[in-house]
Amino acid sequence: MSYPPPLSGSAQDETVELRPKFDAEGLVAAIAQDVDTGEVLMLAWMNADALQQTIDTGRAVYWSRSRKELWRKGDTSGHEQHVVEVRVDCDQDAILLKVRQTGAACHTGRRACFYRIAGPAGLTRT
Amino acid sequence: MSYPPPLSGSAQDETVELRPKFDAEGLVAAIAQDVDTGEVLMLAWMNADALQQTIDTGRAVYWSRSRKELWRKGDTSGHEQHVVEVRVDCDQDAILLKVRQTGAACHTGRRACFYRIAGPAGLTRT
Repeated sequence: MSYPPPLSGSAQDETVELRPKFDAEGLVAAIAQDVDTGEVLMLAWMNADALQQTIDTGRAVYWSRSRKELWRKGDTSGHEQHVVEVRVDCDQDAILLKVRQTGAACHTGRRACFYRIAGPAGLTRT
Repeated sequence: MSYPPPLSGSAQDETVELRPKFDAEGLVAAIAQDVDTGEVLMLAWMNADALQQTIDTGRAVYWSRSRKELWRKGDTSGHEQHVVEVRVDCDQDAILLKVRQTGAACHTGRRACFYRIAGPAGLTRT
């Protein structure tokens, strides 16, 4: 599937048409946020098919850059993301999913991927 | 400046060394989140210098892909981001900043960039 191309300048910021601005690899960044707590769970990538399937089905679907295939979150792990809302940013090169997360969003088994704080002396685990 | 290279597999997930996994263009995605409300404000990009300056100074510094230069948020607009916490994700290819935002995070003048909801019929402004 494909979307119409991005518009230029402020027209892209204000349009009510979905016109994702994919990068050279055909991807946009997608943030998953817990709709109840506001916790940022993870960041992953979507191509056009992943984005459309997410909108159509209410399940988060990403593009795995390492495996080079569509990846419906939870199909292997059981850790599904049920999508309450899909948002796009001003120039439509980033997606924000508000989700209900089953179990762990992170492949390490942690609830969220951002479990380390960076400081001048390195990282601290939370 | 430069960082040590990423480790492989779970060593990267567990290390307490900052070893960002930059993409082919030398960038990682960076999410800015309001530390008080949890609202996701924007997504931008950081190279090694932007990340280190952010950690060292407590002000959000990004890499502008369009202008190809470091961009300290607020220097032109006055809309500064004061960084309370810098987090990295499991494989260290994404950054989460918890910030106190002065004014608008979005270049459109809106508080946050994710002001449109995507659905089967297109976008709806919030």
